[in-house]
Amino acid sequence: MARFKLTIEYDGSPYVGWQRQENGSSVQQTIETAVTAFCGEKTRVMGAGRTDTGVHALGQVAHLDLQREAEASTVRDALNFHLKASPIVIIEAEAVDENFDARFSATARAYVYRIINRYVPLTFEAGLAWHVRPELDVPAMHRAAQRLVGNHDFTTFRATACQAKTAVKTLGNISVRRDGPNIYVNVGARSFLHNQVRAMVGSLKMVGTGKWLEAQITEALEAKDRKACGPTAPACGLYLESVTYAEASGE
Amino acid sequence: MARFKLTIEYDGSPYVGWQRQENGSSVQQTIETAVTAFCGEKTRVMGAGRTDTGVHALGQVAHLDLQREAEASTVRDALNFHLKASPIVIIEAEAVDENFDARFSATARAYVYRIINRYVPLTFEAGLAWHVRPELDVPAMHRAAQRLVGNHDFTTFRATACQAKTAVKTLGNISVRRDGPNIYVNVGARSFLHNQVRAMVGSLKMVGTGKWLEAQITEALEAKDRKACGPTAPACGLYLESVTYAEASGE
Repeated sequence: MARFKLTIEYDGSPYVGWQRQENGSSVQQTIETAVTAFCGEKTRVMGAGRTDTGVHALGQVAHLDLQREAEASTVRDALNFHLKASPIVIIEAEAVDENFDARFSATARAYVYRIINRYVPLTFEAGLAWHVRPELDVPAMHRAAQRLVGNHDFTTFRATACQAKTAVKTLGNISVRRDGPNIYVNVGARSFLHNQVRAMVGSLKMVGTGKWLEAQITEALEAKDRKACGPTAPACGLYLESVTYAEASGE
Repeated sequence: MARFKLTIEYDGSPYVGWQRQENGSSVQQTIETAVTAFCGEKTRVMGAGRTDTGVHALGQVAHLDLQREAEASTVRDALNFHLKASPIVIIEAEAVDENFDARFSATARAYVYRIINRYVPLTFEAGLAWHVRPELDVPAMHRAAQRLVGNHDFTTFRATACQAKTAVKTLGNISVRRDGPNIYVNVGARSFLHNQVRAMVGSLKMVGTGKWLEAQITEALEAKDRKACGPTAPACGLYLESVTYAEASGE
């Protein structure tokens, strides 16, 4: 048996999310089907993070075990061949030892949230960014965002359906920057609560439009109440950017 | 009667090109249909350049005449409303005087050609860039491209179907630059021959892969023979970026 680490890029628009669901096609299942088409094996592809319906990935990481012996580059190319009808691509495949676990070995996750801030509708970026019409005050959003950095109870910024035992998490970093009409919110942490990034971005947008003062981000955080959160930002702007592992995972 | 200048962004993937054709839906016709839906008038929307099937625009310019009086902002918003099922957006509408002609008043056109240079297939950029697998030598492509700048007979780099009376054109500028896997070829001129940008990019790619020496660009140009051209780059990577007018066109 050989374990492989996969780095995966996907457009989440047509999927119910990373994880297998009864109600539609998932990224996980689509890759598992490609594995079976490649080598006949039925195996589970375990992801580092469960992206929601419509959420994208630039660098999702997953692992899988194969009975068949294969070069990592063959696994990558064969899966890409069988995925060619899907907006899913294996960026890299690496042979790893059996202790590597895409989810539990991860030491950090980075997401980027993409906003397009312009008056007219989107064309190329429809479904790939949040379209926000009013001009956003990005420096104010960035300053307000710094109030979220560190170890906090993020109850305000978690989905009511979130299954984590505790809402206490450490937000490592967050930045908000503008490049013309493109606004990028970059965040990094060991792990995130369900909907945490979208909830934080939704509240920061309230600061950006001037509906909230910067200090209201702190008030929202301290309220430890979902109702204190701004409207959650839509899934289409969110990208799982990368997953970090402490040790070199290659054999 | 009032004339309006429109600045237009579109994803050309689903269209037979800018211009009305018998064999499918065009960008021009789609906008003309939106004009009729808005105000009941049947009018021609005259573009600055005829983009081919699958070619995109970030800043196509067109003009149209309306009998009905309307604010430019109303024209923009109403057309965008009626275009909402299409990947076409009116970025800006301006009232202009009747001497303004989107095509004949233009003093310069800029195109950008987008290449994604990576081993694995594309996801987000499928249909929006040329996917080139072998690593391209971008500095060599840029140096070779400078051999095309200036006044030349571009017969080698024109489509056989090109209807221009002369193949002599002045290429104002061309640059090739890399940003990670993204390679951008930016070109500017008063006007271009049919397929000229795609033909030049196709030949520069031959330099990028090392199949052509840089000097072969000059040999190809001097041959004044379509057969001396490298394989034409695909339409999906080409964007009409902007059109320039000498005088301020606003009233």
